[in-house]
Formats: sequence, structure tokens, C-alpha cells
Amino acid sequence: MTSAAPTPAYRRLGVEERRSQLLEAALSLFAQRAPEEVSLDDVAEAAGVSRPLVYRYFPGGKQQLYEAALRSAAEELEQCFAEPPEGPLTQRLSRALDRYLAFVDQHDAGFSALLHGGSVVETSRTTAIVDGVRRAAARHILDHLAVRDPGLKLRMTVRMWITAVEAASLIWLDEGKVPPLDELRDWLVEQFLVAVVATAGRDPQTAAVVKAALAAETREGIVGSLGRRVLPVIGDAAHLL
Amino acid sequence: MTSAAPTPAYRRLGVEERRSQLLEAALSLFAQRAPEEVSLDDVAEAAGVSRPLVYRYFPGGKQQLYEAALRSAAEELEQCFAEPPEGPLTQRLSRALDRYLAFVDQHDAGFSALLHGGSVVETSRTTAIVDGVRRAAARHILDHLAVRDPGLKLRMTVRMWITAVEAASLIWLDEGKVPPLDELRDWLVEQFLVAVVATAGRDPQTAAVVKAALAAETREGIVGSLGRRVLPVIGDAAHLL
Repeated sequence: MTSAAPTPAYRRLGVEERRSQLLEAALSLFAQRAPEEVSLDDVAEAAGVSRPLVYRYFPGGKQQLYEAALRSAAEELEQCFAEPPEGPLTQRLSRALDRYLAFVDQHDAGFSALLHGGSVVETSRTTAIVDGVRRAAARHILDHLAVRDPGLKLRMTVRMWITAVEAASLIWLDEGKVPPLDELRDWLVEQFLVAVVATAGRDPQTAAVVKAALAAETREGIVGSLGRRVLPVIGDAAHLL
Repeated sequence: MTSAAPTPAYRRLGVEERRSQLLEAALSLFAQRAPEEVSLDDVAEAAGVSRPLVYRYFPGGKQQLYEAALRSAAEELEQCFAEPPEGPLTQRLSRALDRYLAFVDQHDAGFSALLHGGSVVETSRTTAIVDGVRRAAARHILDHLAVRDPGLKLRMTVRMWITAVEAASLIWLDEGKVPPLDELRDWLVEQFLVAVVATAGRDPQTAAVVKAALAAETREGIVGSLGRRVLPVIGDAAHLL
């Protein structure tokens, strides 16, 4: 066989290449079904290889394969929040959420099973991987807020929002992906905005962040749109001020 | 021994009474340490009984005892959000949060271990118990919003906030219970308020709920106070409207 020959599915792959192929097959199965319902035979079949070959790469069996697949998904997920520090904050957050929600959309059942917890493959290691993603997301967001030494209230607000986004993602999957991804994304950006604004009322550092972020927004952006939609709702409450 | 005689610790208890006593001892141990670090011997010692007696009541050993303790804690937690439907919404939420945060304060390590996940005693059953508490809390809150048939966006907003409260509770425990409970409570009420206000900009049902809730607030209440603190922060952004 020359290197230019067509490569059938059973061609010999390099070690790293084979490992990636098995992980990809596993990830795609874990995305469709709960880990309980995925067997090593399924993975072997999906990758077009024998079960012993899967064991050669993952001698720890399904648990090892699941953790490796989770680690690879976690790396992908962490990248969602990497975004150049340019333009209005809401646009950056919007782009990050676009990637994150596309990931959720694509990994569907596996994402639900993982975050719903109580799965047979859940261990302190898998929990640590998921927590690592949350921490990475929080770090990215705090970087975008351009705060050198974020205080407790700002950090708590960011982490509360990240958890709320997870909850929204799970409900979104449960409810058959309603509302559409674009609307969910904008809504979550708005939820972030109002969360930091409320915290700004209690925390000078957050207040400075909010002021700086608002100064970079345009009338056509999410802040203006939110303000115009919300004012008629709360307008009658001006006497409370 | 007459029934009026002093009752030393080793007196015979009725079945239900003994069961409650063992559960209480277990709960107090699980509140101080992760389930991994609590043995049946510890529970027996804390309750002043023999290890075989603990086994007689909980033949499934630690796992059964943990689940029973969790179920009893879950019942207590569900009651936190039971509140008469009277007075401004923010005051009701404030009272419910007071009870919830007192529970978190009291159950400390056990609460953290449970919600951090990945524990050896975590099963689909323990996950279901925790989810039951979340659902009960959501139901209570939606009842207070007095909506007959809550739509997706309102339900999502409430559930996002409940998850955010959990996240805040865990960070609060991690950070040595800073800020003080009262401040955390008010802050979480404010986070609820702004979350529903933002959703009101996208959802007529939520808008109606917000208008009704605001109409019952007073100038001295949380809404007015939040508004007065936040206006100076966002005032410069009026041109975005």
C-alpha cells in the first residue's frame, strides 16, 4: 500500500490518532445517551474496531474512557470563553455564550447526564474536571472585566451566573431546546448584566466595572435594548426611589 | 423505674424515637464532616448506643443511614420556603431565605459535601432527593408569584435563581461565611428581583408578575433601597435608552 492509496476505515492508525478516534467515537455516544447506556462494545462498533483494541488503549475500561472523553470535552468547553478583549463586554460575552450553547446543543444527553449527577461513572475525579471548567470560565470572565484583584462579591456574582447558565442549559435541553439558541444567549447576557448591576449597588469595585462596561456600549447593543424593554415594566415603581 | 424517674442516656426508647435519635446523631456528624469521614462507629458513639443497634435500625449500613438523614434534612429544607402569602414579595422571600441560610449555616460541611458532588455516598437516589428540594422550592416561589400556569421563561428564571442561591451558599461556606448572613440574604433577594425584571423585558407573563409585585412594595423596602443604590451607577448610561 502506498501512502497515496485510499484509506479504508480499518487502516492502521498511529497511537495518538487511534486514541483520538476512540475518544471521538466515545464522545459522540456519550452525547446521545447516559453513560449507563453506553458499553465498550458500542464504542468499538462506532469506531469500527475490536473490543480488545479499545481495551488496549483504555485498560481501565469504560470508566477510564469516560474520564478521558470528559477531559477532552472539558478542554473544548474551556476554550469557549477564550475571547479577544476587544469591543463592548456584552458582545464578547455573547460570542462566548454562542460557543458554549453550541457545545451544549451538540453534547446534549451527555451534558445532561454529567450535570444532573448521581451517574455510575461520577467520581471525585469527574467532579473535579467539571469544577475545573467552571473555574476556567470564571477566570475568563473576570479577565474581561479587567479587574486586577476581584473581590468576593464580584467573584460570587460571576460564579452565581455561571451556575445559572448551567441550570438554564439543562432546562433548555429538557424542554426540547426552547427558546431558540439566539434568544437564550441574549437572555443570559441580560441576566449577567442585571446581576452585576445589582451587585454594583453593594460593592464599589463592581460599580466601577459596571460603569466602565456601560461606557463602551452602544445604543443598538444589548444594554440599550434591555433598558427600553424593561423601563415600561418598572416605570410605575418610580415612587419607591 | 416509674415513668417519672430521671431518664439516663441509655434508657429504652420506642422504635420511632430511637430512629429519630440515630438520625439526629448522624445528621449532626454529616454536618461537620464529609460522608467519607463518618463511620457507623462514630454514629453509634455520638448516639450513645452500640454499633449493632445502629445496624438493627439501618441494616443497609452507612449508605442507608446517609440517605435517611438526607431525606430528613430535605424535608426540613423544603419547609424553609413555606411562607404565608401575605405582604410584599421581597419580605416573604427574605424570610424564606433567612430560614434557608440558617439551615446552610447549621449543616455546613454536610451541605458542601452533598452539593459539591462526587461523594462515595452519592447515588441516583441522593441526587433525586436534592432535586426534589429544588423542585419544591421552585413550586413555593411560583405560588408566591401567584401565577396560575407559569410559562417557560418564568420557570427558568426561578430555577436559575435557585441554582445561583445554592452556588452562593457554597461559596459563602468556603469563604468562612462572609458577607454576614443578613447581607447575603438581602443581596440574594436583590438578585431575584433583577433576574425577574430582566426576564420581564422578554416575557409578558413575567412583566405582569413584576408589576404586581412592585405595586405591593414600600419606599422603605428592598426594591426602593436597591433602586437608590443602583441609579447612580447606571445613571450615566441613560443615552443608551
